[in-house]
Amino acid sequence: MPEFDIIKQYFQAATAQRADVVLGIGDDCAILQPPAGKQLAVSTDTLIAGVHFPEDTAAEDVGYKSLAVNLSDLAAMGAEPAWVMLALSLPAEDPAWLQQFMQGFSELARQYPLQLVGGDTTRGALSITVHVTGFVDPQLTLRRDGAKPGDSIYVSGYLGDAGLGLQKRLGQLSSGQGLDHCVSKLNRPQPRIELAQLIKPFATSAIDISDGLLADLGHILEQSQCAAEIVLGQVPLSPELQAYYGDSLDWQSILSAGDDYELCFTVAPGNETQIGSIAAAMDLPLTRIGEIKSGQGLVCLDHEQQPMNLSVAGYNHFE
Amino acid sequence: MPEFDIIKQYFQAATAQRADVVLGIGDDCAILQPPAGKQLAVSTDTLIAGVHFPEDTAAEDVGYKSLAVNLSDLAAMGAEPAWVMLALSLPAEDPAWLQQFMQGFSELARQYPLQLVGGDTTRGALSITVHVTGFVDPQLTLRRDGAKPGDSIYVSGYLGDAGLGLQKRLGQLSSGQGLDHCVSKLNRPQPRIELAQLIKPFATSAIDISDGLLADLGHILEQSQCAAEIVLGQVPLSPELQAYYGDSLDWQSILSAGDDYELCFTVAPGNETQIGSIAAAMDLPLTRIGEIKSGQGLVCLDHEQQPMNLSVAGYNHFE
Repeated sequence: MPEFDIIKQYFQAATAQRADVVLGIGDDCAILQPPAGKQLAVSTDTLIAGVHFPEDTAAEDVGYKSLAVNLSDLAAMGAEPAWVMLALSLPAEDPAWLQQFMQGFSELARQYPLQLVGGDTTRGALSITVHVTGFVDPQLTLRRDGAKPGDSIYVSGYLGDAGLGLQKRLGQLSSGQGLDHCVSKLNRPQPRIELAQLIKPFATSAIDISDGLLADLGHILEQSQCAAEIVLGQVPLSPELQAYYGDSLDWQSILSAGDDYELCFTVAPGNETQIGSIAAAMDLPLTRIGEIKSGQGLVCLDHEQQPMNLSVAGYNHFE
Repeated sequence: MPEFDIIKQYFQAATAQRADVVLGIGDDCAILQPPAGKQLAVSTDTLIAGVHFPEDTAAEDVGYKSLAVNLSDLAAMGAEPAWVMLALSLPAEDPAWLQQFMQGFSELARQYPLQLVGGDTTRGALSITVHVTGFVDPQLTLRRDGAKPGDSIYVSGYLGDAGLGLQKRLGQLSSGQGLDHCVSKLNRPQPRIELAQLIKPFATSAIDISDGLLADLGHILEQSQCAAEIVLGQVPLSPELQAYYGDSLDWQSILSAGDDYELCFTVAPGNETQIGSIAAAMDLPLTRIGEIKSGQGLVCLDHEQQPMNLSVAGYNHFE
């Protein structure tokens, strides 16, 4: 099937229609009308079969996740999703796979006023590059460089589930019946777009946890030129993960496996009550796990208040 | 080397710095200030080793071309280049290759006020996805759907050189000493950004010739709901290509090989003089090769004014 017919058949109907899309799929470029008074937040992320997801991952899950990881970057800046482009490399023409891929992509996309405005389909190893554009208010952008000593450090949801789900999928666990929630968290992370809109008046910095808390919080510390102290006993863990590990929690894995796509954010002293209210309103755990300090470095305190020695390395594609 | 260090080392210094880039490489998203009174033109294209370029292509040429094919899409809409993002998948960490790649990328980028604002580096088969954003004037966008019967059809430069250069590179030519210009045209196409700025007040439609004249003019005809008549004897051919073919021109190859990245555009009757002046000012051939007709279909007339039977199929990644 010619490239243009593929595009028409699967792509044009996949997402919402926006009034600010002057010209959508089908010309050399899409033409877009940016909104007055806003700035644009843009991000691009690539997922490669066998690197970012197991080769046998369901096409729907690949479609969902390839969009989710990009929307998560918009969430981390406090941006509202607007436009998306999809560059898809496929080993062979496979309409069934493509249809399922677009079904997963569309399922997530339709949660937002997000329009697919263009892309490219090519022949090659399975690889998906998504580019997203969102809108931010100039004064309310969640950057990595705004944390200050004394700020509380929060994370949304639970940490470590996606990493455990990946170990399960790769057959690396000797036991581990169940863990359906963890595998689902791996395949279908929920980008925290709505949460980001609510916290952005109160948060001094934010990042999405794609490479593990240690690495991603480390980016905030580096760019804010601060240190931090984390209390491991306060790190939120799902019932399923706790049931799997029992008394022998694998903190190294929980804090460096990544792929959770929760938000880590900092809040100035005095704003904790508002964060509690947002957690209640969203029915989503927002947990204070530590505090920003002056200096540099990240200390993780165990249950005896002693520093635990953990490697900061997150997932690194070139190591 | 960690991903973040790679980014810092090679990417931040590669392009111009723009005042409308509020936040560049290094956060979850770049933050960009769109200009008042303009619309955005956006495009993304992927190049894959072994599909879009021979595996042994020099890294500098891959870097140059991966940007050139995207800028060519901006040219085809009459857009001014502004921001670019680069998603790069590499089989292994290879600083020398990456440095050379960025040298070629940067060499072209620095011809424009274009800033690299973000991207992603991953491990995988060699593949480059570039996303470009340009600015257009709402009333002067060069679309595919504006051609009218009676319009003149023009192309810039010469056609067929890149296709012949590819045959040379692939060792498919029995003779063919020289052809350096053709190989250079394959590896280093010049996006027609400046030309597009000059013709946009006069052109009724435009497209860049990436898949061959027959296929790309075909898109204009389809979207403008018109037919066209091309006179083969008027199609501009480079001295090098003419010398190679002599009396036996391979029209099928010349008109369907693609990769020339010249512009094909239509001009309303009475504006031919202006096009001539632009050609003279730019010292670039702009050649009238035929006329838009009512109806549908594309007819190519040979030197006896007889229709020549040519296949319209351009390069198709799934055929």
